[in-house]
Amino acid sequence: MKPKLKKYFEKWCKIVDKALDFYLPKENVEPKKIHKAMRYSIFAGGKRLRPVLVVAGAEVCGMSGQKVLAQACALEMIHTYSLIHDDLPAMDDDDLRRGRPTNHKVFGEAAAILAGDALLTYAFKIASKNGKINGSAIPEVVHAIAVGAGTEGMVGGQAIDIEMEGGRWMKLSRKKQEEVLDRIHENKTAALIQASVISGAKLAGASPKQQKALMEYGRCIGLAFQIADDVLDVVADKKLLGKKGSDKENKKLTYVALFGLDKSREMANALVAKAKKSLEIFGNRGWVLSDLADYIVERTH
Amino acid sequence: MKPKLKKYFEKWCKIVDKALDFYLPKENVEPKKIHKAMRYSIFAGGKRLRPVLVVAGAEVCGMSGQKVLAQACALEMIHTYSLIHDDLPAMDDDDLRRGRPTNHKVFGEAAAILAGDALLTYAFKIASKNGKINGSAIPEVVHAIAVGAGTEGMVGGQAIDIEMEGGRWMKLSRKKQEEVLDRIHENKTAALIQASVISGAKLAGASPKQQKALMEYGRCIGLAFQIADDVLDVVADKKLLGKKGSDKENKKLTYVALFGLDKSREMANALVAKAKKSLEIFGNRGWVLSDLADYIVERTH
Repeated sequence: MKPKLKKYFEKWCKIVDKALDFYLPKENVEPKKIHKAMRYSIFAGGKRLRPVLVVAGAEVCGMSGQKVLAQACALEMIHTYSLIHDDLPAMDDDDLRRGRPTNHKVFGEAAAILAGDALLTYAFKIASKNGKINGSAIPEVVHAIAVGAGTEGMVGGQAIDIEMEGGRWMKLSRKKQEEVLDRIHENKTAALIQASVISGAKLAGASPKQQKALMEYGRCIGLAFQIADDVLDVVADKKLLGKKGSDKENKKLTYVALFGLDKSREMANALVAKAKKSLEIFGNRGWVLSDLADYIVERTH
Repeated sequence: MKPKLKKYFEKWCKIVDKALDFYLPKENVEPKKIHKAMRYSIFAGGKRLRPVLVVAGAEVCGMSGQKVLAQACALEMIHTYSLIHDDLPAMDDDDLRRGRPTNHKVFGEAAAILAGDALLTYAFKIASKNGKINGSAIPEVVHAIAVGAGTEGMVGGQAIDIEMEGGRWMKLSRKKQEEVLDRIHENKTAALIQASVISGAKLAGASPKQQKALMEYGRCIGLAFQIADDVLDVVADKKLLGKKGSDKENKKLTYVALFGLDKSREMANALVAKAKKSLEIFGNRGWVLSDLADYIVERTH
C-alpha cells in the first residue's frame, strides 16, 4: 500500500472503529450474549475496506467523510453479518476466520444466526438516520444498500456459490462456467463494494455521471478483489489466511481454476486499469480510490 | 371475528398478497432456489396480521391503505424471515409450521438461512422506496422497523427465549420470571406489531399524540396476542396448530405456566381493554383496530 493511502486508511480505520463502538449495542445490555457475539465479529481485525469506500466515495464527491460515518458503519455491519452466516456449519462450515474461532464456534449456532440477523437489522437502523445529511438521499442510500446485500447482490452470489460447491460447476460447459464465475463474484463481492462507494457518493449529492463512474469503479475493483483472493489462496501461507483447506482441495470454482495464475493476475490488472480509468472525471480528487485499486492487485504479487 | 372486520381483513389480505407477489423476486430468476424458498414461506397461509396493521395504522390517521402497501409487505417479509430462522435446527428445530414442512425441511438449511437473510434485506429495500409518499417519513419508518426487528425488539426477544429454553427460567425468582416473560414478549411479538401500526401511522403523517396512542395499542395487543398463543397451546388441537410438542412438554416459560389458564385469559382481556382505551382519540375511525383487539382474545375462548 502506498504510504499516503496507508495514512488515509489508518486514520479512517480508527475513526470507523470508534463509530462502530458508538453505534453497536453495549455488551452489558440484554441480550448480552448476542451483543457480545456482534462485537466479537465486528472487532475481529477486518480491513474496513467497505466503510473506507463509503468515506472515500463521499470525499471524491466533495463531502467530508465525517458526515457519512453512520452509513460507513452500516456497510461494515452487513459485511460482517455475511461472514458470520457464511461460516455456519450449514454453509461453508468454517472453524477459523483470520486465525480466530468463528462466531458460532465461540457463541453457538443459534447465537451466531441471531447475531448475523441483528447486524443486518442494525445496519438499516443506523443507515436510515443521519442528522448530518439534509434532503432525500437517505432513502435512496438505504435502497442501494439493500439491493447490494440482497439476492440481486451479496446473498445471490453466496447462493450460487453454494450451489456450485463440491465441483458441481465442472459439469457445465466452459462458457457457462465463466458466466457463472463472473455472476457469483459480481454479486457476492462487487455488489456490496459498489453499494459502499455509491452510498458515500449519493450522500454527497453526486451527479448521475459521477454515480455511473463510481458504480463501474466498484464493479471492477470488486471483481479484481475476488480474483486477488483466488490467487492468494494458491500462493499465500494458509495459516496466515486462517482458512480451512485450499480452494483446489475443495474443488471450488475460482478464477485460478478456470484461467490459471498468470491469466488471473492479468485479468485483475486489466480490471484495475479499467477502474482507474473510470475515475478520470474526478481529477486529482480521485487519488484515494485510484491508489486503493492498485493496492487490491498489489496483494497478489 | 366480527363480520365487518372479517370483510376488511379479507379485502386487504387479497391486496397484500398481490402486492407481495409483485414485490418479491420471481422464481424463474436466479438464484431460483432462494427465490422459491422465500415465496414458499411467504405464501404459507400466514394471517397477514402485520401488513393489515400497517394499512389500518395509516387509515386510522386518514391515509388510504393503498399508499402504504410497500411497507405493509416489508413487515410481512420480516415476520416471515423470523419464522424461517426460528424454525432452524440450531434454533427451535421445528419440522412443521401450520401443518406444512418448514423451510429448511424443503430447501435445506443453507437455503433457509439465505432465504431468511434475503427476506429481511428485501423488506428494507421495499420499505425505503415508496413513490406514493411525500416528505421525510420514509427514513423514520425504516428506522422504526429496524428498531422493532433488532435486538431491542424481535431478535432480542428470540435471544432471551432461547436462553430460557429447557426450563432454565425455573431457576429464577418468581419476580424475575415474570419480568423475563414480559420482556421476551414485549420484544419478540409486541415490538414488530408496534412497528407495523406505527409505520402506517408515520406514513400518514400522524401527530406525536396519535403515534403515542398507537405505540401503546401495539404493545397491549402484542402482549395479548402472545398470551392468547400460550393459552391456545394448552386448549387447542395440536394438529391444527402444526406444532411439535406442547409448551409444557418443552418446559417453556409461558403465561399459562406462570399464571394458569384463567388468570392468563384475564390478563389478555385487561390488555385488550387497555388497547381499546388508547384508541379513544381516534373516535369512530378506530373501529378496525378496536375490533382487531377483540379478535385477539376471541381466539382463546
